[in-house]
Amino acid sequence: MAGKLSEAEREQALKNLDGWTPVEGRDAIQKSFTFKTFSQAFGFMSRVALAAEKMDHHPEWFNVYNRVDITLSSHDVGGLSQRDIDLAGKIDRFAAPFLS
Amino acid sequence: MAGKLSEAEREQALKNLDGWTPVEGRDAIQKSFTFKTFSQAFGFMSRVALAAEKMDHHPEWFNVYNRVDITLSSHDVGGLSQRDIDLAGKIDRFAAPFLS
Repeated sequence: MAGKLSEAEREQALKNLDGWTPVEGRDAIQKSFTFKTFSQAFGFMSRVALAAEKMDHHPEWFNVYNRVDITLSSHDVGGLSQRDIDLAGKIDRFAAPFLS
Repeated sequence: MAGKLSEAEREQALKNLDGWTPVEGRDAIQKSFTFKTFSQAFGFMSRVALAAEKMDHHPEWFNVYNRVDITLSSHDVGGLSQRDIDLAGKIDRFAAPFLS
C-alpha cells in the first residue's frame, strides 16, 4: 500500500503528467477531458473503470455529455499517493486515441 | 421533441417517481444511489449509458466508489421535460436489482 507522497515527490510526479493540476483545498489532482460525443466519453470511462477496478483504486468523476471531470486522491492515506499518479497515467493513455 | 413540463405536470411526475427531488435553483431533478461496490455502481452506470445514448438524452452524474449522484434536466428546453421523467423511470428500474 503506497503512502502519501512527499512535497518533492508530488511536484516531480505532476511535472511528468500532462495537464493534471492540484485541487484547491485538497491533497488531490484533477483533469477535465472533452470528447466529441457521449459515446466517446463513456467508452473512455469504461476503460478507466476496468483499470480502476483492477487496481482497486477508483476515481471521483463527473460526466455531462462529452465532458468528463476526474479527481484523484487516496482516501486511505488522506492525500495523493503513487497509485493516483499511476492511475492518472493510465487515464491519459486511454483518452489519447479520442483526442488525437 | 418534448417541451418543458408545466408546474402541474412536474408535480404529478415527481409524485409518480421514487425518491427524485427538485434541484435547488435549477429546473432539474436529482437522486443519489448507493450500491455495495464500484463494480455494481459502474454496472448500473453502463446500463444507464446505453439507454441514455439510445434516447439521445443524457444524465449529469457524479460517481465516487459505490455512490452515483444523478441530475436530470433537458438542456435544449432549459428545464425538466418528459424525457427526464422517462429516463428517471428507466434509471430506477436499472438500479432496483442491486438495491433489493
